[in-house]
Order: sequence, then structure tokens, then C-alpha cells
Amino acid sequence: MAKVFDAAEVARHTSADDCWVILYNTVYDVTDFLSSHPGGAKIILKLAGRDATEEYDPIHPPGTLEGNLKPEAKLGTVDPATLPKPKADGAEKRQQSEGPPDMQSLLNLDEIEEVATKQVSKKCWAYYFSASDDMVTKSFNNQVYKQILLRPRVFIDCTKCDTSTSLLGHKVGLPLYVSPAAMARLSHPAGEHGIAQGISSFGALQIVSTNASMTPEQIVEGSAPGQIFGWQLYVQNERKKSEAMLARINKMPDKYKFIALTLDAPVPGKRELDEKSKDLGSSEPIRSAVMGADAPKRPGGGGVGQQLFFGTAADLTWKTTLPWLAKHTSLPIVLKGIQTHEDAYLAMQYAPQVKAIILSNHGGRALDTAPPAVHTLLEIRKYCPEVFSRIEVWVDGGIKRGTDVVKALCLGAKAVGVGRAALFGLGAGGVEGVHRTFEILKAEIETCMRLLGVEKVEDLGPRYINSRAVERDIYDGDAGLEKRGLWVKANL
Amino acid sequence: MAKVFDAAEVARHTSADDCWVILYNTVYDVTDFLSSHPGGAKIILKLAGRDATEEYDPIHPPGTLEGNLKPEAKLGTVDPATLPKPKADGAEKRQQSEGPPDMQSLLNLDEIEEVATKQVSKKCWAYYFSASDDMVTKSFNNQVYKQILLRPRVFIDCTKCDTSTSLLGHKVGLPLYVSPAAMARLSHPAGEHGIAQGISSFGALQIVSTNASMTPEQIVEGSAPGQIFGWQLYVQNERKKSEAMLARINKMPDKYKFIALTLDAPVPGKRELDEKSKDLGSSEPIRSAVMGADAPKRPGGGGVGQQLFFGTAADLTWKTTLPWLAKHTSLPIVLKGIQTHEDAYLAMQYAPQVKAIILSNHGGRALDTAPPAVHTLLEIRKYCPEVFSRIEVWVDGGIKRGTDVVKALCLGAKAVGVGRAALFGLGAGGVEGVHRTFEILKAEIETCMRLLGVEKVEDLGPRYINSRAVERDIYDGDAGLEKRGLWVKANL
Amino acid sequence: MAKVFDAAEVARHTSADDCWVILYNTVYDVTDFLSSHPGGAKIILKLAGRDATEEYDPIHPPGTLEGNLKPEAKLGTVDPATLPKPKADGAEKRQQSEGPPDMQSLLNLDEIEEVATKQVSKKCWAYYFSASDDMVTKSFNNQVYKQILLRPRVFIDCTKCDTSTSLLGHKVGLPLYVSPAAMARLSHPAGEHGIAQGISSFGALQIVSTNASMTPEQIVEGSAPGQIFGWQLYVQNERKKSEAMLARINKMPDKYKFIALTLDAPVPGKRELDEKSKDLGSSEPIRSAVMGADAPKRPGGGGVGQQLFFGTAADLTWKTTLPWLAKHTSLPIVLKGIQTHEDAYLAMQYAPQVKAIILSNHGGRALDTAPPAVHTLLEIRKYCPEVFSRIEVWVDGGIKRGTDVVKALCLGAKAVGVGRAALFGLGAGGVEGVHRTFEILKAEIETCMRLLGVEKVEDLGPRYINSRAVERDIYDGDAGLEKRGLWVKANL
Amino acid sequence: MAKVFDAAEVARHTSADDCWVILYNTVYDVTDFLSSHPGGAKIILKLAGRDATEEYDPIHPPGTLEGNLKPEAKLGTVDPATLPKPKADGAEKRQQSEGPPDMQSLLNLDEIEEVATKQVSKKCWAYYFSASDDMVTKSFNNQVYKQILLRPRVFIDCTKCDTSTSLLGHKVGLPLYVSPAAMARLSHPAGEHGIAQGISSFGALQIVSTNASMTPEQIVEGSAPGQIFGWQLYVQNERKKSEAMLARINKMPDKYKFIALTLDAPVPGKRELDEKSKDLGSSEPIRSAVMGADAPKRPGGGGVGQQLFFGTAADLTWKTTLPWLAKHTSLPIVLKGIQTHEDAYLAMQYAPQVKAIILSNHGGRALDTAPPAVHTLLEIRKYCPEVFSRIEVWVDGGIKRGTDVVKALCLGAKAVGVGRAALFGLGAGGVEGVHRTFEILKAEIETCMRLLGVEKVEDLGPRYINSRAVERDIYDGDAGLEKRGLWVKANL
Repeated sequence: MAKVFDAAEVARHTSADDCWVILYNTVYDVTDFLSSHPGGAKIILKLAGRDATEEYDPIHPPGTLEGNLKPEAKLGTVDPATLPKPKADGAEKRQQSEGPPDMQSLLNLDEIEEVATKQVSKKCWAYYFSASDDMVTKSFNNQVYKQILLRPRVFIDCTKCDTSTSLLGHKVGLPLYVSPAAMARLSHPAGEHGIAQGISSFGALQIVSTNASMTPEQIVEGSAPGQIFGWQLYVQNERKKSEAMLARINKMPDKYKFIALTLDAPVPGKRELDEKSKDLGSSEPIRSAVMGADAPKRPGGGGVGQQLFFGTAADLTWKTTLPWLAKHTSLPIVLKGIQTHEDAYLAMQYAPQVKAIILSNHGGRALDTAPPAVHTLLEIRKYCPEVFSRIEVWVDGGIKRGTDVVKALCLGAKAVGVGRAALFGLGAGGVEGVHRTFEILKAEIETCMRLLGVEKVEDLGPRYINSRAVERDIYDGDAGLEKRGLWVKANL
Repeated sequence: MAKVFDAAEVARHTSADDCWVILYNTVYDVTDFLSSHPGGAKIILKLAGRDATEEYDPIHPPGTLEGNLKPEAKLGTVDPATLPKPKADGAEKRQQSEGPPDMQSLLNLDEIEEVATKQVSKKCWAYYFSASDDMVTKSFNNQVYKQILLRPRVFIDCTKCDTSTSLLGHKVGLPLYVSPAAMARLSHPAGEHGIAQGISSFGALQIVSTNASMTPEQIVEGSAPGQIFGWQLYVQNERKKSEAMLARINKMPDKYKFIALTLDAPVPGKRELDEKSKDLGSSEPIRSAVMGADAPKRPGGGGVGQQLFFGTAADLTWKTTLPWLAKHTSLPIVLKGIQTHEDAYLAMQYAPQVKAIILSNHGGRALDTAPPAVHTLLEIRKYCPEVFSRIEVWVDGGIKRGTDVVKALCLGAKAVGVGRAALFGLGAGGVEGVHRTFEILKAEIETCMRLLGVEKVEDLGPRYINSRAVERDIYDGDAGLEKRGLWVKANL
Repeated sequence: MAKVFDAAEVARHTSADDCWVILYNTVYDVTDFLSSHPGGAKIILKLAGRDATEEYDPIHPPGTLEGNLKPEAKLGTVDPATLPKPKADGAEKRQQSEGPPDMQSLLNLDEIEEVATKQVSKKCWAYYFSASDDMVTKSFNNQVYKQILLRPRVFIDCTKCDTSTSLLGHKVGLPLYVSPAAMARLSHPAGEHGIAQGISSFGALQIVSTNASMTPEQIVEGSAPGQIFGWQLYVQNERKKSEAMLARINKMPDKYKFIALTLDAPVPGKRELDEKSKDLGSSEPIRSAVMGADAPKRPGGGGVGQQLFFGTAADLTWKTTLPWLAKHTSLPIVLKGIQTHEDAYLAMQYAPQVKAIILSNHGGRALDTAPPAVHTLLEIRKYCPEVFSRIEVWVDGGIKRGTDVVKALCLGAKAVGVGRAALFGLGAGGVEGVHRTFEILKAEIETCMRLLGVEKVEDLGPRYINSRAVERDIYDGDAGLEKRGLWVKANL
Repeated sequence: MAKVFDAAEVARHTSADDCWVILYNTVYDVTDFLSSHPGGAKIILKLAGRDATEEYDPIHPPGTLEGNLKPEAKLGTVDPATLPKPKADGAEKRQQSEGPPDMQSLLNLDEIEEVATKQVSKKCWAYYFSASDDMVTKSFNNQVYKQILLRPRVFIDCTKCDTSTSLLGHKVGLPLYVSPAAMARLSHPAGEHGIAQGISSFGALQIVSTNASMTPEQIVEGSAPGQIFGWQLYVQNERKKSEAMLARINKMPDKYKFIALTLDAPVPGKRELDEKSKDLGSSEPIRSAVMGADAPKRPGGGGVGQQLFFGTAADLTWKTTLPWLAKHTSLPIVLKGIQTHEDAYLAMQYAPQVKAIILSNHGGRALDTAPPAVHTLLEIRKYCPEVFSRIEVWVDGGIKRGTDVVKALCLGAKAVGVGRAALFGLGAGGVEGVHRTFEILKAEIETCMRLLGVEKVEDLGPRYINSRAVERDIYDGDAGLEKRGLWVKANL
């Protein structure tokens, strides 16, 4: 039978060579684990000797601890009566006393984000809201849609409107998907499973993050018939871990229909807001993760983003990674993070293993002043439109309105992803908040299609938009130094 | 003899299956009508058992009730002594104590709007001011005129200046018309009739809205000799209703000279400000009309715009609607809401039944990020200038200054419409406010024409403006996917 | 001997048919004059029966009254002891107690304007600061210079720098002139004569306004040897008055070297700020001068600008006005207010009578959204560069920095005018303020020329600037409707 | 033995013909020196009779006084006990009580500047922060980088990243150098030597200013093996002084590897913020240095920048200065301040004596609205790309982020300079602050290179950026008046 400890006894083990923590009423000796913790030793030492459940829970999927500790590290249980009472922080107090407003009273995604900002903890907000450097790209992602004008055709029967389409051969109710965004439980206990529930009635697709706060199995549990998912892969330096995860995904072929390999963040971007958010349970000044050349090797102390990054591989290549993937899964591959027409053109060469690409700058969280997906769409249209007929092109970043979605579709996108919007929906109102987010987007898409005089998603095209103000800003090559063809071939 | 009720007796009938209201001192049983009320049942139930005159009056033309209720629904009259005293709301109180300033002290349309904003109720302001989504188009409608420069010619005798012109063959004193804007009595009891009175001395044209708060007969009553009107048609799903209205209009051939068929809002845009304005006489939180795919069928609870929309047909087409119209009126047709050169080109094919088109994005109230009329003018100049010689091209949206009017005329417009400006003029000072609005516009137009060295409206042309900053942003086709000719023909 | 009145006696004559005023201690009966007062009868009636000297003096040159009244209208003098004591208004009080700062402590024109704004009356400020409508052109006049980049050449001996140039064959010390701006005594008793004194040591040119608050003789009194002037002509409807003025100017050939015929304001622009400034000596609400078609004929009640405009001719033409001028003066003509290349091209045809043109939009005070002079310079460079070799091209509007001046010179201007800057200099510190304004501009011009590596004004040219951001916005004709040549000829 | 004075005795010598000051406890008679003081006599007279050490020390390198005074001017020492106690000003007090925050907590250059702004005196801040006129160029220097987009290539192994490069044949650890910025001790006693220490571990290059507040020998003292320096030359009117300095520099060939001849400020720009900062130790209103044509000869009273300028030669030319330099040093010449492709092309003709050019507008401190270095880079790419292969092209101005650095390198720059950033780093935290500044830049550069998929500095090129929004604004010649070839030859 497990030993029962007093909290006072646990509180004596707080040093780097003798470190205990309490999680879910169980007492663990994590001394040996300190050096291999993805988030760094320091963050554990701050919680040493205490009940760390509140800090640990929302960012670790079940099973994380068991997979990393030896059985003997589990020392016993704590006597709950000896624990101090938890103090709710400001946000929680507010949430309890007032609660979020009726989701139906919120009319657009900005209002939902505003409510979420009040509901979630500051740390959670900083992680979701943050983007790299000066957030130029994050802001541009949205503004670029406002620069594109719509061209409504009139005197057309618009009583019918059908938002359904097919993605990778699967029927979906909306040309929308949830981008793989990490740590949903930071904002709401329903987590990624709550997102799946919130979008189920819309027949929308969800890509599950490697860094989800729930297991892939939990997330898809109870999903609607026909509701489909993709699994996002950040390849780990320890390839075996990635292979094991792929094997788990392969076991759910009726749910997970593809692997989304993330390419746009081989090293973490510099998200200063996130780095500035107070460390877990501590109010001491933080020290930045910016440490010069060896930063990626010493993540300690940084924001949530930096911690999640630990162990991610930076050595992926077209020629080595795709064959390796082929060995471990027969699911189609979606390449996420394409930002130039050259890479779109290269990706097309790898069909049919590669079935789609996602034009993405990681929500402005990787390289600041990287182009918005709209630029890359226009580049492809200009330099290699054959891409659209060989593979599917999806886009994400900056979506706030149904008109934004329709504009991307007019430019050739087959699907449009929302990341922060889903997380803010969850933060604002849990499952209902996610549902409201998609309800708004669907209604806005339909209104837009009707007012354009278009009944079906596949009938949308460039004649319905005027993107001239954007077109003049897209890359037009460097005639003096390269020819596109040569440059692309050199990379094959 | 009619029965006389105590207010207390009426107040007992407030449920969905037993619902009475008092209107103009008459007691009605509206139970059977609840399900077919264009504004939804809920809005009536909120007023059930009470005197609803104050809420009903400014948005329903006389005869509305009689046309929709069976005779036996009229139960009797109320004893006025038993009614509670009405409480004036803030705006009314302000209006009574201070009143609006001398209209002659207001120097421009912005100042008039500012005064109106203080005079009218918040709900009225929200309905007039609101536009779709983020109001990008509403704002662009005006800004685009500021991007166009004038080119004054000098050393020209400018002692004479003549603003008169002809529209559809009728002489008018100004190249201005009042756009068909609904619910004028929301802002002032003089209503649409007051607008007609306010503009009569200028010889300006007025288009009367289907959703006017007065009958078409009332509005033109006492208008000046030669003062002309058009009647705006929102075709109803119940075509018979529209046919009946056309028959009424046909009976006033000396007043109503054309039918303006509205095409730019087959489904309602998303006007969030309007949706947010408090429900009639109630302070409970509103629930949005955004409900997904079936929203148009379940308008309940939304703003004024949503309520007005109930029953409007979304199935109009070039090939079915114009012949149907020809059967029910011999008046010329003006197509309102053209937003592309393709549709302008198509409209031209339907001359002489179609005598004019109105380039309009519904004041930014239909599809946000739709182009301003100036873009469409420039598109027509570029791709199919023959339109100008076959039919008249009118424009509206964003007019704040006489220079804006002159610029539109230089680009080929034959007339320019003002909608909100007329309503705000009415709200600011009734008939006198509308008169002041047009007095200012006329004076500004004259000053502009004189300083350009142009005496007559028909002498204005593109050489008097520099629209280059706008021209580079207009649609330039999608060479890869369509040829204009083909695209247009495919729609014929 | 003149009769002496008590103030109380004068105060009894305040009606439209019996109206007296006191000016410079003399009592006048102005009843007969009321109907012909350029500023309207109302403004006199407000001052009726009182000492109007304070209001009259700063806007009327000496001799104005005598030239307009019959001898018998001079009734006698007032007993000064019976007059009430004058009350200084806020600005005057401030001026007396604090006084302006040391002019040498002011570093740029914005700081001088800021000081002047505090020193002068609100009415004066409104008259100087105001521009038409939304002041788009006034603001653009300045911003357009910021869009032009300089191109400094280095490794060039820049120890010498010579700002002198010649204008119409006369040597001047600076390529700067004072634009003809009215009513200098509104801001400072030194008036236009003070401006002449302030610029005398710089060898700068001054154009004296028709509406100057001092006589042409007074203004040039005591000017430095070689200091030259031009006289601005607003042609009057009563041509005889203009002819008489020309005769006066012709008598000072060593001072007045040319006539600047103003063309850019045949009717007054709409300067709302000016119109809003309180009427002279009254706090009652003003009524606008915007009265529709007959406004120019009924100026009453408007701002200072409207009052000055009374009687100005709007019927000038190339073919009638220039020959008439030739009959009344042999001075060369400078045409002020050219705003298109077409009119520049036309003006060139009238050399040698016309020796120069001034590209001007009247400081943004005539037609709002008229182009800045920089646009017209670029148009001339593009369409008819021969203009530069046939006549001199001067520009004004928006000058705040020496770099602005240099940029205009690089584009082909021979001289650059400052209007408000001179008035604000005068308002800030009288003669010394004007001197400081020109001292700053001269120093900034020299620094700019030295850093460009240019020693002489005539060596400045387009290679020293990059105006590409502006060039793409200039008028590029309307290929479909006109050929430049044809259009120009049609106007000859 | 030196005489010892009471402070009271010294305090009696305060007039222009009898002026003593105390410096480092020594009493000097500076009467004869007053007229030749570069900063003007007035500034010394304000400190006459007092201990001027605090004002003198941070802006004069050791030896300055000795080199300018005759031996007999040294009168003796002061009795320290008779001196008044120094009063710390606000900034110093703040610094002492709070001190700067932990440098590691600062995440970007803006945050470091913000801390420095609080730490240093207002006068120091004004000198560093100020730029010419309206600071258009200073602001544009930075904004232009934000207009350039990056083009990240993905699926590339980015585990390695090497920021080293070679400059003038010397290996450096970073493509960054410290621009020659004057008066480092104004912000921190560690001065220019502190900057050298702060960057030593990064292998970065430092250009030492002629106006450094320490001697060239002091600055390089204790620098790391392989750490290299350049010496900035402002040629003096008294050439002998410059020749003497060159001789000193020639004696340190292992440290000083080149001479950076400054060309972009032959006369001082107009830095108003700097001119407005209170005179040393005085609160009386300042009088501007803007005095008209003779300003450069009478600098007195202006800001720090004006004082430093005294005696600088404005007569440098390609044909006379380079041969003179060749006689006095065999070090390679770097020409600083090239702002046009024409001058870049000319510089190339002087290889191999000239080995590099620095595209610079003097941090926006010389001529306002001069182009940013990015414009000049693009001009060279367009008109004379051969320059890049013949000489090295360095740039400075506006660098705030590692992405800015990478963009300049992609456009062809071999090195990128930071001036204010180094000074603000020093002001924020001394040596540690400078180190942090470079640590941040290096980390940001590496993150950027990794996310672009580029391992080595020399692999960066235009294909990694989209500079189209900037390209359309660069100078495109003046076809009508010049051919580039002719223009360039005319200047050879």
C-alpha cells in the first residue's frame, strides 16, 4: 500500500539533487528527471516541494509523467488535509463571479477574442496572442485580406448556398479547418476535445497538435460520424518517439486521415509577449531565452513556446524525411508552412505522397516579416499555377471574417484554417464558444457567397475579387541573379 | 359601438396564444398574426398587453395593420385615462429642452450628422449609421473621393453656373437624388414626406423606399410642380404583394417616373451596430440573428435591417424578373446595385426597358469590402465605355461634399445619390434640415464648378480630375482564367 | 469748426436708416454707404452708434473711408472723455503680460506658427489658418514635399554657397518671395510694411495684396535699395477702380516691378474655420454665407475671406483681360493660380507680356482637393517642358522647410513663395518675427544646398531629388476623350 | 611646487578678459583660449570661476586641454575642501537609487533604448536621439526595413548557422560593426572603451569616432586578440591636426585596420532636439546656432553636435583628398556617407585605395529626407551592380532587429553598422548593456538565417527577400536631362 506523506514532509525536498513534487495527490521524486525536462530544470525547481498540479495539468497530456519516470519515482500519496488551500487568481475569480456572457450575444470573432482575453489567465493569453518580434506578420496576415475587394454579381438567384467541399477526397461541411494549435487546456478544461465537439455539427476538419494538452485518442473520442482529423507532426530529434506516435495515429484510420508535417518552425520564433509572461507560479523577473548561438540547446526560462520546442528536429529535408515518413505511415502527407512558390513547386513533385500543402507563416509566430499566405497564393498563380491542379493548397493566418475565407478560396485555396480563433472560442465559452465561432464564420461565408451570386464553393474564383492592391507587392524574382526554373531545380 | 377596455384588462393578454396590443387607442388581438410578423413574434410579445404605438408608429406606414389583420381582430378602444403616462427617453428630453441649433449655422454634412446623432434615438442612429462587418466599404466609399484630385482651369469667365440636368428625360435642378432609404420617421415625424418637402425647391429627384414609413401617396402629397419621384422595389416572395404595389405606383404617373429595382441586397448584410441596438422598449440582452444556414428564414431578434428584410425575394434573375416587371408596369426600370462592369454591360443589353443603372454597394450595408461606385465607374470607362451612351449611369455612396458629386460626374455619372445625408438632415432639423443639406451641397457644387471653369453639368469630364491614385487599384481581370467577353456572354 | 458729439448722442443712431459710427475719434453718418459695403450692411449695423476703430482699423488701408463717403457724411468729432474704456481681449492681455519669446529661440516655422497662434486674436488665426472644406489640399501641399527624397552628392567642396538668383531680370538674394496675403495688420500693427522691413536684409521679393491693410505706398516706404515688389491684382467688377489702382502702382516703377494677376480664386472658396470665427465685436451665433446660387452676390455674415471678396470680377479671360491690362500698365504680368499643364502651356503663348506664372492653389483656400504645385511642376516637366524656357515658373503652398524650397527649385521652379509663414512670423514677433522666419529658411536652404554638393541655385536640378513616389500620382491624361494638343488649342 | 587656491579666489575670475576654471582639481587660466574654443567662448564663460570637471570630462578625450593651452596657463591646484559639494541631477539620483534592470531581462533594442533613456541625462539623450529637421529620414531608415518581406525556404537542414564573415580581408564573428558615434562617455563612464569590451566576445568590428571621448589608444586597450577597429576621420581645416592623428593611428596597425573618411556631413545638419537641450550647467534660454549665411563660422550656443563640428573641413574632393590621405597613411580607405549610385560608382574608380564604401545618411542627422541606405543599395543593384564585386558595400541606419540586418545582407551589403544601438546599450548598462545589445542581434540574426534555410552569411541573396514595395520608390533617373554615364563622367 502506498505511503501517505504530510505536505510539510514533501516541502523539505526542494533542491536540484533532492526534488519532490505533488501531482494529482501523488508524491513523485523527480530528481533524476530534472536534466531531461523539455521545459528546463528551473521551472520544476520553482515548484519543488509543492502541489504542482495546477501548473502541470493544462499543458501536459495524460501519460506524460508515466512515460518519463521510473516506477520507483512514485513515492506515495499526500494527505490532502495537510495541503494549503488553493488561491484563485484574478481571472478565475472573475470567471466564477461573473462568468462569460451568452455566446449568442457575440457577433464576431473580435468580440469572442475580447471575452476570451478576460476569461483566461494572462499567461494563456500571452501564449495565444503572441507572435514574433514586432508582430508585423501577424498583423499583415489580417490586413492583407482587407486590401482585397470583393466583386458582387447581381440579379442571380441566390436562394441556395452550399458551403460543403471535399478535402483530400473526404466530404466536409465547410472549407474550414482548425489549425494545429497547442495547449488548448490552458484556456479551458474541455481542451482539444472541446474543440472537436464544438465543430462537430459543422462537419469541419481539425488538425491535432503534437503539443496538444490531451492525447490523440481522447481528442477524437465521441466525435460525430464522418468527422475527420489530421495529426500534426513535429519530428523529434529522438526519431523513435515520433515513430511511436505515428504508430498510435495509424491505429485510428477512421478518424485521422493525414499527417500534417510542420515545416515553418524548425527553430522557435521570438515571441516576446510569451517570454515576458510570468513563469509558472512565480513573480520573480524572468530571464530571456535569448542567449546567443546555443539558445536552441538551452531553452530554460523562456515562454510556453520555447518550452514546447525542446527536442524538435531542425534537420528535416525533402530527400530524407519524406522517405522516412513513408516507412512509418501510409497516410497522405500535408506539408505545413510553405511560404514561397518555389517550395510549393517542389512539394508538387512529391505527389502523391504529398497530397496538400498549407501556406502558413505559423500565425506570424515564426519569422517576423514573412509573407502572408495570400502573397504565396498569388505567387503560385503567377509562376506555377499547375500546382493547384496537382495538389491541394490550404492556407491559414489572419482569418477574422467569412469574407476573408471566401477571398482565399477565390485565389485558389481549397481550405482555410483558423488557429487562434478556435482557441479564443474555447477560452470564451468552452464547447459552446467554439461552436459559436464556427456558426459565425459559416453564416458570414454564406452571406458573402450569396451576395457574390455564387452557390457552390467550387464556383468561387479570381473573377469575384480584385486583388490588384496586393498583387503589385508580391515577389517578382531577381532577374539579374536567378531564373526561377534554375533556382527550383537546384533545390530538387 | 366599439367596446372600451381598461388598460389593466388589456395587460392580462401577453402570451403567445393570447396576445393583445394597443395601437392608436385601439385594442387588437394579434395572436393569429404572431407567426407571420416580418419582424418575428418575439418583438410583438415584448409589447404584448401594452400601448405599442410609440414603437410601432415610426416604422410602419399607415394601413400596414389593416392589411394584415382580420376585421374581428379589432376588439375595441382603450380608456385613455387608464394608460400610464409615457416617459420620454434621453434623446427626446434633450430635444425638448435644448432643441437643435439653427440649421443655417451648420456649414457641412458632417456637422449636420453630428447634430442628428444627438437628436435622434440611439436605435435610429444605429440603423442609419451602421454598415456591414467592419464598415470597410462604408469608409472607403467616402475616402476614395479624397484620393481623386480636381484640375481647376483658370482665366475662364465663371459668372454663370448651371447645375440643372436631365434624368431619364426629365429636367431636374440638381444632379442629385435622394437614395431610397427606409424608415425616415424613425428620426423625425415629418418622415419621407418631409424629405420631399425639403428638396422641392431644388428640383431634386427622390427615390421612395419600399420600406418607407409612409405610403407612397402620402410622400408625394403636395410636392412641387415638376418634382419627380422614383419608387424602389424590393420584390417580395409573395409576388402578388409586389404586383399590388406596382399597381398603386402606376396610378401616379405625374409623380413616379420609374421603378428602381434593388439588386444589391438579395440577402441582408451583417450590420452589427444595428443588431446591437436595444430591442424596442426593452433592455434585455439581444440574441443575434446569425444562426447559420437558415438565418434568412428566422430573422427574429436582429436589428431594424433584419426585420425589414423578411419576405424579400432572393431569386431574381435577368431572364425572369425583367419580363415579369414588364407585365406589371410600363415605367422605365432603373437597376440599383450594379457593382461590376460585367453587370453594367449586361444591363445595357436590356435597354430600353432598363434606362439607367445605379452603381451602389448599398451604402456599405450589404457586402463589406465590396468596391465603391467610383471603382465601378472606372471599370466601365476602361472595359465597356459604350455603356455610358446606351443607358444612364447613376452612383451613390460616401458623398459628403459638393466636390465628391462633381468628381463622380466627371467620371461619367449622370446623377449622384445621397441616402444617409438626407436622413441625417431630417433627423437634425426636419424639413428645414433636409433643405439645409441640399442647400449646402448645391452651393458646394457651384463653387466647385466655377473654380473648375465649367458652366454646365454636361461639360464636366475626366479632364477635370486626376484619378490616377484610384485607377491603379481597379480590377484588371484575370487573364489566365477568363476573357471578359466570354465571361459576360456566359451570363447572358 | 467740427462739431463735438457725446458718445451717448452717437449711440442713438443704430438703425439701417440712421446709422452713425465713430472712427479715429471722428463721427460718420454711414447710412447711405450700408448697401454698398463690401462686407455687407449687417456687420456695420452691429457696430452702429459705437467706436468701431478697433474693428475697422486692422482690415482697412488708410483712405478707404474717404474714398467711399461723401464729404458731408463726416459729422464731427467725439468727446473722448465720453467714450467707454476699451477692454483688451484674452490674446491682447496675454501679449501684454507675457509677450512673445525671444525670436532667436525659435528654431523652425512650426514653432513660429505656434507662438503666433498664441499671440494673435482667434479671428486672425482663423483667417490665416483656414483653408477650404476639409483642408485636404492645404495638408497635401506640405506632405507632398515629404514624399520627395533628396539625393546628396558627396566629396564635393561645399565651402561656398550662394542663394542669390534673378527673378524677371532682377537680382534677388533668395529664391523666396512673400505671397500676396491679405490683412497683415490683423496680426500685428506693423502690417505689410513690417513684412517688407523684416525681409529687406535678405533681398527677398514681396508681392503686395490687393487686400493689404496698408496702402501700396506705405508698404514700400523705407525699403532697402534694390528691394523689389510686385502688386497683386484682383480685378474688380468696377474696372475703373482697378484701373485707378494700376495707375497708382505705375507711379512707383523703382519699387513695383510687376503685376501679379490672381486667377485661382474667381469665386471664394469655402473656408469654414474662417466663417465660424465670431463676427466682429459680437458673440451671437453666425449665419453662414452659404446660401445657394446667389451666394457670391450676398456675402453678408461670412468670414473675413468672404468679406474681402465682394466686388471681385469672375469674368476674366485670356482674350479680354490681358489686352485690357496692356492698356493700363506696361509692367510685366505674372499669372498667379495656374494649376494644370494646359494653362501653363496657354500662359506661355502670351509671353512676353506674361513673364512668369505662379503655380498655386491659393494655399488650399480656393478649391479643396486641387493639386499641389509640385504636381503641376511634374505635369509641365512631362507634357510641355518648353514652358520652363519661355517663362519663369514660380510656386507656392505648403513650404515649411528649406528642403521644401530646394525640392521645388530642383523640379524647375525659379522662385518659391511663402504666405502664411510671413504672416505668422509677423504675428509672432512683428518685424523681428518676419526676419527670423527668413533667417531660418535661408539657413536651411544653405545647409541643404551644401549637403547636396551644390553651390549655386541655378545648378539645382532633378538629379538631386527622387520624386518617384509623387510622379506616379500625377495626371496622365484621358486618352479616350482628348488629345492634349487639341484640348489646349480649343482653349486658345 | 604648485600653488594652492581657494575656490573663492578662483570664483573671482569670470570675465572674458580674465577667465579661470578648475578641471580635475587643477586651476587653469583659459582667457587666451576662449576665442579658439571649438564650442565657442560663451559656453566656457558660463563655467568660469567654477569646477567645470563634470561638464568637461565626458566630452573631451584626455590630453585635449594640454594640447591647446600653454604651460603657464596651468596656475596651480584648488583646495578641495573649499569646493561646494556636487549635486546629482535627476537622472543620476534615479540611477543610484534604483539602478538599471538586469540586462538579461531586456528582450530587444527598443527596450534597451527605453532603459537608456531613463538612465542618461536629458542632454545626452537629446544628442543621441536627435536627427535633422523633422526626423523624416531617421524614421524612414527603420521603416523601410519593415516594408521588405522575407522569403523563408523550408525543409532544409538548419541545425548549423554561421554568422562569421570577412571584412576587408579580416575575419569577423558577425556582419555587424559599431558605427563611429561620438561622445560615448556622455552616457556612461566606460565610454568607447566599454563598447570595445562589450563587443569583444562577438568578434565584431568597431569604428572609432574622431570625436570620441577617449583617446584612440585608450579605446583599444585590452581588446581581444583578433578584435579589429577602424578610425573615423573628420578632416580638420587645420590639416596638420588630422595628419598628426593619422600618424598616431598608423602606430597601431594590429588594432586599426582602416580609415573611415566621413563624407556625409561636410556641414552640420540641423538637429533641433540637440539644440534645444539646455546648455551645460545652465537653465537660461538658449539661442539658436541658426544665424544665416555665416552660421558654420559662428557655431556658439548650439547643441553638442554643433560644438563638435567646429573646424571640420568642407572642402574635401575626390581629386585632392584621396592623394593627400595616401601620403599620410597606407591603411585602406573606407568612404562613409555615400547616398547615390553615382557616388558609389565613382568610389569604385578609386579602388584599391578605397576598399569599401558605407551607405549612410549619418543616422538621419545630416540632411533630412535623404534616402535610407536600402534605397542606395537598390540603386546600385539596378544601375551599377559591378560595384559589389569591386569594393565592399557596408550600410548603416535604422537597424533594430536581426531581420533588418539579414535584409541588408540579402541586398548585397557586406556589413551592417549600429550606432545609436551601441550608445543606448552603453547608457542602459555599460559594458554589459553593449554585450546584451549584440547578444540579442546575434541571436535574432541566427534565428532569421535558420528560418530562411540559410547556413552561411555569403549564401544570403535577393531571392530571400521581397523588396518590391521599396523598389518602386527608388530613383529612376531623369531621362530628359541626363544620361547616367555622362553625369557620372562629368564628376570624375
